[in-house]
Amino acid sequence: MAALRMAPDWDITTWLNTDAPVSLASLRGRPIVAAGFQMLCPGCVAETIPQLNRVHRLFSADQVAVVGLHSVFEHHEAMREPSLRAFVHEYAIGFPVGIDRHVAGDPVPVTMRTYGFRGTPTLLLIDAEGRLRRQHFGHIPDLQLGAEIMALVEDASSLSTARADVGTGIAARCEIGAASC
Amino acid sequence: MAALRMAPDWDITTWLNTDAPVSLASLRGRPIVAAGFQMLCPGCVAETIPQLNRVHRLFSADQVAVVGLHSVFEHHEAMREPSLRAFVHEYAIGFPVGIDRHVAGDPVPVTMRTYGFRGTPTLLLIDAEGRLRRQHFGHIPDLQLGAEIMALVEDASSLSTARADVGTGIAARCEIGAASC
Amino acid sequence: MAALRMAPDWDITTWLNTDAPVSLASLRGRPIVAAGFQMLCPGCVAETIPQLNRVHRLFSADQVAVVGLHSVFEHHEAMREPSLRAFVHEYAIGFPVGIDRHVAGDPVPVTMRTYGFRGTPTLLLIDAEGRLRRQHFGHIPDLQLGAEIMALVEDASSLSTARADVGTGIAARCEIGAASC
Amino acid sequence: MAALRMAPDWDITTWLNTDAPVSLASLRGRPIVAAGFQMLCPGCVAETIPQLNRVHRLFSADQVAVVGLHSVFEHHEAMREPSLRAFVHEYAIGFPVGIDRHVAGDPVPVTMRTYGFRGTPTLLLIDAEGRLRRQHFGHIPDLQLGAEIMALVEDASSLSTARADVGTGIAARCEIGAASC
Repeated sequence: MAALRMAPDWDITTWLNTDAPVSLASLRGRPIVAAGFQMLCPGCVAETIPQLNRVHRLFSADQVAVVGLHSVFEHHEAMREPSLRAFVHEYAIGFPVGIDRHVAGDPVPVTMRTYGFRGTPTLLLIDAEGRLRRQHFGHIPDLQLGAEIMALVEDASSLSTARADVGTGIAARCEIGAASC
Repeated sequence: MAALRMAPDWDITTWLNTDAPVSLASLRGRPIVAAGFQMLCPGCVAETIPQLNRVHRLFSADQVAVVGLHSVFEHHEAMREPSLRAFVHEYAIGFPVGIDRHVAGDPVPVTMRTYGFRGTPTLLLIDAEGRLRRQHFGHIPDLQLGAEIMALVEDASSLSTARADVGTGIAARCEIGAASC
Repeated sequence: MAALRMAPDWDITTWLNTDAPVSLASLRGRPIVAAGFQMLCPGCVAETIPQLNRVHRLFSADQVAVVGLHSVFEHHEAMREPSLRAFVHEYAIGFPVGIDRHVAGDPVPVTMRTYGFRGTPTLLLIDAEGRLRRQHFGHIPDLQLGAEIMALVEDASSLSTARADVGTGIAARCEIGAASC
Repeated sequence: MAALRMAPDWDITTWLNTDAPVSLASLRGRPIVAAGFQMLCPGCVAETIPQLNRVHRLFSADQVAVVGLHSVFEHHEAMREPSLRAFVHEYAIGFPVGIDRHVAGDPVPVTMRTYGFRGTPTLLLIDAEGRLRRQHFGHIPDLQLGAEIMALVEDASSLSTARADVGTGIAARCEIGAASC
């Protein structure tokens, strides 16, 4: 685990899926699962966005905050706000998504520079006290991510024992008395 | 979460992948992830066995014990010990697997009756103090299972912060300066 | 199989991945696998584009022509040409893609109207003589699509028996003398 | 394509899923898709059996014959007839499966020796005149297999143009007028 430095604030021009800006301070008290992504990054679309949607469905909003950071460092013309809004709609993203700020002359946006993302996707785990506990370029398997999130939830000494139970849609089981599995 | 009754002992005729029998008492102090399965249950083969292998690789043996219970309630002739041994070998199962005991005249084996499995697969989560915390007929998604296991690990007040980091084999990432993702 | 009407010409404003416009007439003599898609249609991205890439790799250009038709009928601002160009680059699309023409006041583009696409993805199979043999809204499994394409190839009496052999990347085999599978 | 030698007869002790033995002669006039497999070969279970089931569902029995050859060359005790029968039942195999004959002292069964299978799975494509057109150790992708089967069907000059249309169960499509995809 990396040194427990405080997660730096992100710098966002526009938020989608939220009425108020989402600052780290406003989320204090809950662990945060955030990811830097680009809407035209195939790995982000195939892996990260579905995974964040699963995290968002599994954990209650009181337990875990989920945040997307649209950190565009290439094809800037291709991923403007109208395109991102349609993407968020079509991929049924329910959590807040912030557009990482660009400054003149730098193709890499500010939050991406501040955190030192190597590219997208980059997963961030931030604990309830605002410390950056994990920064990972690429994909983390669900089993491991579930474990790491729950470790942060427990650290937050959230005593809520009611954890969400997510239906799976997978049916293949062998039941006593059934003709076949 | 179900009432926290103590997990009943399992009744096993033969153990594979272990020198000594694996009793609940011998595992006290660690959470246990166990599953009742049948080697010819398609859902067990496609979902449960790979998932138990992932749990076994992700968590250290000090943190979490993984156990398979071969609870055959149908096609008994088809799933005798030699067949199970070959299955365990071919599917590269590394954790202990116990053969659930049959008594004369009952197609359903003893441990399956004791726990009241509806069929296979049935997942069991047992905490470090031996209490049955979860019994689920069917599949639980990895994200949720990872979270539930870690909740038990934290309950065990295992202060080890070194958690295994599992490689993913998934490469699709967009890196700054690369020609494409 | 639908009545064998001639496939109507498509009406394209801009072509990507080709030096010259791709007309039906220019492809006469080869079967055509074409698909109407939108770059922000999740089913198109997850299923259709990878499938067209597989068709493009499996069959030689002499045997089968593959064409994408970007038929945008919603979120028009989100899927302009710069966005499509980045999409084509990032998803490693190697076949020609044409942008379906819009006329003032109609959100549905011209080719989509002419063919009567219900939405995206819509798969088209056109035989070597230019007849529309199949129009399907949604996904067709690879096994069936491979069979339908080859029926058209054989109809074209392409006597070339040399068919591409595509590597699979799947290794799980049991070999005589190996320690395990 | 390999030299067009006649496919040698297979040597089977017991047939499942058929009233009469299935000889090559009895199938003359139709292409045959056959596979040598073992019920405890993970690649066979994950890839080959589901693929043969798809072939069996897609093509009519008049067009294409599907045959499984249980060619056990390891773990012989584990894969006796009762185990195979349960496997065939649980995996819902609907096509004929023959048990490849063993002779004293040879772990490799007769048909496997005759054809020279390197291991399992081995796919065989036999044309309507009984010639062996393809022998492949490992997996062939559906798109390619569909194309190769149809080439043999067309060779058989089966003039039946009615080809089965298989439902896909995949729903993600964008339809005009729908709120979202």
